[in-house]
Amino acid sequence: MDKKELVERITKEVLVRLNEQNRTVELSGQSTGQTAVAEPSGSSGSKVRVPADIAPYIDHTLLKPQATRDQIDKLCDEAAEYHFCSVCVNSTWVAYCAKKLRGTGVKVCTVIGFPLGAMDSRSKGFETRNAIENGADEIDMVINVGALKSGDLKTVEEDIRWVLRACRPTTVLKVILENALLSDEEKVIACRIVKKTGVDFVKTSTGFAETGASVEDVALMRRTVGPDMGVKAAGGIRSFEDAKDMIDAGATRIGVSASVAIVTGQKSKSKYQAV
Amino acid sequence: MDKKELVERITKEVLVRLNEQNRTVELSGQSTGQTAVAEPSGSSGSKVRVPADIAPYIDHTLLKPQATRDQIDKLCDEAAEYHFCSVCVNSTWVAYCAKKLRGTGVKVCTVIGFPLGAMDSRSKGFETRNAIENGADEIDMVINVGALKSGDLKTVEEDIRWVLRACRPTTVLKVILENALLSDEEKVIACRIVKKTGVDFVKTSTGFAETGASVEDVALMRRTVGPDMGVKAAGGIRSFEDAKDMIDAGATRIGVSASVAIVTGQKSKSKYQAV
Repeated sequence: MDKKELVERITKEVLVRLNEQNRTVELSGQSTGQTAVAEPSGSSGSKVRVPADIAPYIDHTLLKPQATRDQIDKLCDEAAEYHFCSVCVNSTWVAYCAKKLRGTGVKVCTVIGFPLGAMDSRSKGFETRNAIENGADEIDMVINVGALKSGDLKTVEEDIRWVLRACRPTTVLKVILENALLSDEEKVIACRIVKKTGVDFVKTSTGFAETGASVEDVALMRRTVGPDMGVKAAGGIRSFEDAKDMIDAGATRIGVSASVAIVTGQKSKSKYQAV
Repeated sequence: MDKKELVERITKEVLVRLNEQNRTVELSGQSTGQTAVAEPSGSSGSKVRVPADIAPYIDHTLLKPQATRDQIDKLCDEAAEYHFCSVCVNSTWVAYCAKKLRGTGVKVCTVIGFPLGAMDSRSKGFETRNAIENGADEIDMVINVGALKSGDLKTVEEDIRWVLRACRPTTVLKVILENALLSDEEKVIACRIVKKTGVDFVKTSTGFAETGASVEDVALMRRTVGPDMGVKAAGGIRSFEDAKDMIDAGATRIGVSASVAIVTGQKSKSKYQAV
């Protein structure tokens, strides 16, 4: 490690610790009246007050097809350093990340039928089973949007069940609706189907459509699935304020790439790509 | 069939026939000096002179995740009517299209690991085998771009071989490079790997990246793979002129959505989406 990197690391660590101290001081215990959700377990007050509070909510995400091994290494290192919930990577990287993150407490999340959701159900099931064998702890699958748009709700549900059957009891399964392509009515229908299948999370977006998560969508999804299911917001979340808004609206997990900037309270410098 | 549809059908058919007549008149037999390629077999002169000449080159493409059953029906009907080479659809639609197109001579083409190419190789192999069992005749897989960018050429090659092993002897396999993400040097390296594996085609683009096919890229790919391999141009091809340019540069297949407008010599009215 050279000097510059050492200075950078220490600076980040100090910022994180300072944020943690602030949190201790700031937490007042007042209830926001927000519906309780299972995770992350936390205070009875506002769930996130300062940037460092966000870390356990974060799936640290790198899904660009051109991502290199060096970038995946960096993603894993950052996730371990800042105690993010998981890294979220394409399935070609699962085995590599699982090995690299062993013992760190950071989970490996991968994406299935991604980002179009138009892969046939059997293949989604296979990709899921294979990813879990390779070390994936969490699975973010994309719904069959075309079937939903065609009113073929049976196919939508069966598609989710193919993936669900490939999961282990400990696997966390999230179903991505890709809200950018859906009407509000379709979002509600999709949420109900997802809830019916008994999976863990409903998720807003892939990050590859024209729009990503919105506070309105997160609130709508939370209202529809009720207080006990997970809601993951992803796509276009660039700052602490964005992340806090999503969590306050009902999100229990967020997918972001600018995770380090968010938890250290830095402004994201370059134009942030959702993916 | 109502009157309006009848008028539309007859009009299109007349336009196609007129184009065919024009072709007969216009074909002068002069050699362009262009390298001969295996398909479509044709005249010794310029391969395409009039819009209707394009039809046998076309993979009639609809890969939008929100494509409905009605839109897939229309795609198949058009492909049968205008004698396109194939329909190109996501794997969730393969069985449906194969049944619908039985006896028409139109092939079913599907996409694998699409559009990111970052799905693990075993799953690409499974998706391929499953698609072929469901009736797919042609397979357009996406290369592992991240491995290529990481200099891990062994993984790039092995990934292609996983899909190739899942193909039947009669299956046509095309490998998509996603040129938008590659340097010219990387395009050449990728072409060489693809050629080494002995697959049928190298293909420019998915249609989901920021740029699609370019004449320069098609020419570069043709020069690199030599005269005997297929080159497919896809992404952003909107008019007869675009299609003709690609074919003149060395493409032996084109992937387009605006296929009917192209072969009937109509201008594409709306802003055409590559996918």
